[in-house]
Amino acid sequence: MTSYPTKNKEAADPILIVGSMAFDDLELPSVNAKDVVGGAATYAAYAASLFAPVRIVAVVGEDFPNSVLEELSERDVDVSGVERAKGKTFRWVGRYAQNLASRETLDTQLNVFADFRPKLPPSYADSPYVLLGNIQPQLQLDVLAQVKSPLLVAADTMNFWITGERKKLTEVLSKVDLLVINDEELRELADIHNIRRAAAAVRALGPKRLIVKRGEYGSMLFDDQGVFFMPAYPLEEEIDPTGAGDSFAGALLGYLSAVGTLDGGAVRRGLAFATAVASFCVEGVGPAKLKAIQRADVMMRLEALKTLIHAGG
Amino acid sequence: MTSYPTKNKEAADPILIVGSMAFDDLELPSVNAKDVVGGAATYAAYAASLFAPVRIVAVVGEDFPNSVLEELSERDVDVSGVERAKGKTFRWVGRYAQNLASRETLDTQLNVFADFRPKLPPSYADSPYVLLGNIQPQLQLDVLAQVKSPLLVAADTMNFWITGERKKLTEVLSKVDLLVINDEELRELADIHNIRRAAAAVRALGPKRLIVKRGEYGSMLFDDQGVFFMPAYPLEEEIDPTGAGDSFAGALLGYLSAVGTLDGGAVRRGLAFATAVASFCVEGVGPAKLKAIQRADVMMRLEALKTLIHAGG
Repeated sequence: MTSYPTKNKEAADPILIVGSMAFDDLELPSVNAKDVVGGAATYAAYAASLFAPVRIVAVVGEDFPNSVLEELSERDVDVSGVERAKGKTFRWVGRYAQNLASRETLDTQLNVFADFRPKLPPSYADSPYVLLGNIQPQLQLDVLAQVKSPLLVAADTMNFWITGERKKLTEVLSKVDLLVINDEELRELADIHNIRRAAAAVRALGPKRLIVKRGEYGSMLFDDQGVFFMPAYPLEEEIDPTGAGDSFAGALLGYLSAVGTLDGGAVRRGLAFATAVASFCVEGVGPAKLKAIQRADVMMRLEALKTLIHAGG
Repeated sequence: MTSYPTKNKEAADPILIVGSMAFDDLELPSVNAKDVVGGAATYAAYAASLFAPVRIVAVVGEDFPNSVLEELSERDVDVSGVERAKGKTFRWVGRYAQNLASRETLDTQLNVFADFRPKLPPSYADSPYVLLGNIQPQLQLDVLAQVKSPLLVAADTMNFWITGERKKLTEVLSKVDLLVINDEELRELADIHNIRRAAAAVRALGPKRLIVKRGEYGSMLFDDQGVFFMPAYPLEEEIDPTGAGDSFAGALLGYLSAVGTLDGGAVRRGLAFATAVASFCVEGVGPAKLKAIQRADVMMRLEALKTLIHAGG
């Protein structure tokens, strides 16, 4: 079931990613870590760039290290769309529960993110794969308006926009092919608890494909072919789930670009790749482990993931 | 992956089931239902008897309807081990949350169950498959002492015994081949949150095979071959989860008897059958739907379940 991407990274089509680049201060059960370079776009870019070239649209402040942008460039991540603005980089301060199953936001400092108006370099306009990270729906629309006929538009969102910007979010959803969303957020968006009916209601708003992230319980895909389930990879040591969902979405788009097809089977196999990549993310503080892995590591974890779902015989 | 049981029910070896037979008063989101015939042994027997003959050890009061015992007999369930005692049948009164994800016990009336001392008819002593339902650990041991060299001993337990009878429960675990347990209870028993390490700790106490039930998220198997995951079947309409876990365990043992092998592949395929059977249980109030289905219905649901886990390609 795990057809490996047929294309080398250089031959794959680029993924446009818009989202936050940030500093995170993390209170984790195993360690406290300050000034961890994070943000949805960062995690998604590290993951997607395992499989395909990436183009980032984001904003950072004067305090954001150049070395991170250089490191990304070396991974075929185009950072010409990363604006460096006057002021400080977006910062998130969070505390995780002992079991990592929940987290609490202690502080959010928007900083330069408050005035972010995504402006795409002209070279980004032909991006065939677009990942709209979890930002204000109007900004997601602004990005879409600057892209010419993409093959696949994927988006993430969160409860803050579901309650506060539902009308704009509905407009976004009407333009999205694939929505990647947490299960509580799906239920909130649909106002239906039953996951199958909630998925049907949200798919009726636009996204033909819907992926529901369920944390340690894995993910589900809803599409025209039906429902598909992928368990999470059960780690023996979980360190930091920050960015796991963004890594998941980035890896999925990277994989789809690298196989060059969007049929139901490809998306299903993509879920396995995305699950494998996201599991590495949880094994390190911030993106430390994620950015250290290679395609071969993903392949090995996929083999382990296969034993989790194949009964044999 | 879904090798169908090769044996007809009559040719399969019998499953000995000990557990409660009860009246349940259920406050469900869709309906309130009183005097619903339930109990772990009842649900497990309905499920197991789809695949294999069953022998029940339980106690009922004078108020328990004869018609239910007759109905069970007609399904090849031997009820000669069901003692009819003076007094009232065990009663559980529960209220489910609107989303069915949690429930609250409003009342437990032990009644005749308070003095239950399981006594096996001599004809039960050779039972090759034994399911020790969620009862006091000492009673589980009493049942085991009356069975001669079974092929497979499976057991369930609950937080009440984990906190109150840990020593006796540990003795039970040392004699059990397969433990079927909820995920919160596994974590409580092991005092470890990480599910993989919790499973390893509990397997070290005896049961080589451990199945973790995770409600709407499915189930996981831990054995010498590794970890295996089975999603729950996503129903569009969930009515009553009472007895789903007991149906799951009963169906699993019934399936294993009907295929006549206990290798890792059989147990993995058994999880799929058990999942399919348990999903029917949730579709009706009490065991109403569960007792109405046939093998062919299970087969159809299995086909649907397969699409949930096979990526194809």
